[in-house]
Amino acid sequence: MPRENAGPVWAVVGATGAVGREVLGLLSGRGFPPGRVRALASERSAGRRLPFGEASVGVAALGPGAFEGCAVAVLCADASTARAHAPEALGAGTLVVDNSSAFRMDERVPLVVPEVNGQVLDGPDGPRLVANPNCTTIILVTALEPLRRAFGLEAVDVATYQAVSGAGLGGIAELHAQSRPGRRAGSPPPRVFHEPCAFNVFSHDSPVDAATGVNGEERKVIDETRRIWSDPGLRVTPTCLRVPVVRAHTEAITVTLAAPAGEREVREALAGARGLRLLDDRSANAFPTPLKATGAEDVLVGRVRPDPGEGPDEAGRYRRWCLLACGDQLRKGAALNAIQIAERLARAPV
Amino acid sequence: MPRENAGPVWAVVGATGAVGREVLGLLSGRGFPPGRVRALASERSAGRRLPFGEASVGVAALGPGAFEGCAVAVLCADASTARAHAPEALGAGTLVVDNSSAFRMDERVPLVVPEVNGQVLDGPDGPRLVANPNCTTIILVTALEPLRRAFGLEAVDVATYQAVSGAGLGGIAELHAQSRPGRRAGSPPPRVFHEPCAFNVFSHDSPVDAATGVNGEERKVIDETRRIWSDPGLRVTPTCLRVPVVRAHTEAITVTLAAPAGEREVREALAGARGLRLLDDRSANAFPTPLKATGAEDVLVGRVRPDPGEGPDEAGRYRRWCLLACGDQLRKGAALNAIQIAERLARAPV
Repeated sequence: MPRENAGPVWAVVGATGAVGREVLGLLSGRGFPPGRVRALASERSAGRRLPFGEASVGVAALGPGAFEGCAVAVLCADASTARAHAPEALGAGTLVVDNSSAFRMDERVPLVVPEVNGQVLDGPDGPRLVANPNCTTIILVTALEPLRRAFGLEAVDVATYQAVSGAGLGGIAELHAQSRPGRRAGSPPPRVFHEPCAFNVFSHDSPVDAATGVNGEERKVIDETRRIWSDPGLRVTPTCLRVPVVRAHTEAITVTLAAPAGEREVREALAGARGLRLLDDRSANAFPTPLKATGAEDVLVGRVRPDPGEGPDEAGRYRRWCLLACGDQLRKGAALNAIQIAERLARAPV
Repeated sequence: MPRENAGPVWAVVGATGAVGREVLGLLSGRGFPPGRVRALASERSAGRRLPFGEASVGVAALGPGAFEGCAVAVLCADASTARAHAPEALGAGTLVVDNSSAFRMDERVPLVVPEVNGQVLDGPDGPRLVANPNCTTIILVTALEPLRRAFGLEAVDVATYQAVSGAGLGGIAELHAQSRPGRRAGSPPPRVFHEPCAFNVFSHDSPVDAATGVNGEERKVIDETRRIWSDPGLRVTPTCLRVPVVRAHTEAITVTLAAPAGEREVREALAGARGLRLLDDRSANAFPTPLKATGAEDVLVGRVRPDPGEGPDEAGRYRRWCLLACGDQLRKGAALNAIQIAERLARAPV
């Protein structure tokens, strides 16, 4: 039931993209009235209408005065668009949450996952521009935060199984087109990705650093994880791959705790944590999957077990733990986290 | 061009299954004459004909006298069939290579990857029964053997992206059926697997040990890797998941070397190794994928890089290295490795 149209206006920049549409969907799902949404995009998309629950909203061009009267702007565009338009929004008195990588490593801009370091948003002199982390990072730190709080972390090894939605709506269309029966593997030829995505697995599509061999996605996971946890020396070892999944990421994590922990303590820490749901039924072989995480707001965790290569200490505790996390890349990995930041920043729950 | 039909006869048990068909395909591809193949299967399949290159071979039932006159039997059936029929084949004077898990941890039966420990097959008193390791293990040890020889290994962390072919032809059919456009996710309902396999990732379908949380596939990787390398204390930490890929496995590996190594040494070791192909072009983002590994005899390795979380020593060397390996689960992971064992055992290259 939409509420009244009086109240603060939220701008959604890049509204026609995968993350922008998800922000609209989450807002409408929470009863946010369409009259308080300003959907913004490039000139090319101006005049289109986008679904907003049962209603729809018109798309306006991102031109002069676009942020006038907006309390909040959620930027769901690329880094260059963010750099070009964030100052304008801030100048109009608008609070800005940016989904791109533009400001993530800018020391003046907080990088926030509310369950982890949301307190930086509070207080009378809170920030007016906040960066939303990379999707893989959000899912990783959300899953591990309860273990970090309870036992401390010494190292994180993570292999990712990333959905094609991270490359936008074009990635999803490419996966579906290549999945049609009777198609030869890799047909039609890839355009969004550098490899066929259907029935395949490939190293993440971000550029690979010639000197280190680390790709852009892995670099983000390392740098952003350290920054969010204020732990610049943390050993983070990611391998980021894409898999033929539409929109939720899976992460196979092995974490080395600073203090050893027993199985019950580890499970209790995870089970009681905000933003997580523990799904771990060994007898039924029921654990998190990206299909189960699709559309969910929580990150799913499971397959929780001590590293079988490590023996327990005299108290039956272990330092190294393995677990699996799945999170909707477009929700907690992007749109939902941004909305959670914006709500807390604006002191106004949607 | 098939060669003459005189010469030793090879029996292929479980010839109608995914691995059995692959053995037939590899034999015919090498010019093995169809008249020297005895395709065996259960009573139910007797009388069927299976493709053998341009020709075909008839399927006989696995009954009394089935192995009479066979020099070699490649068993491509389940563990109970192997236990029931291996003694009979051995009694008929037949050399046996078993693909199942029946004998893999039997101290009297060698567990062999020819590139790694093939020497146990040689000599006048060589074994008459040899176990073929699990597919994930074969790909892992083949990829790491050159590093083990050059630098020694201290620990292996591996996350797998396993193809559905590991569950046989039924797994492949299920993936294709669920991938049809317009199908709801997970439709038709899974029967071979416990989760939908199309557009999904899930924890391996082997049972999960209630006490340790380790599943059957992971246990095989741990135990078989230690056994093949005669290194019972090696720390092996696997996470085994399935992905929507038809027939080649991908493994994201982080290995801790016993002695630190520089990048050039590591690459040289991998590039010169038997059974491997290094595919590692950072500027083109071209690395191993399961589609590239499909049908290949070599295991593909790439994304070779030092752990970005570890600093180099004073000589620029690292202890921890990350790499990606892809191998055709039905070829090097099963049929090809078994044929390589059989050839060496019989002193008769196919």
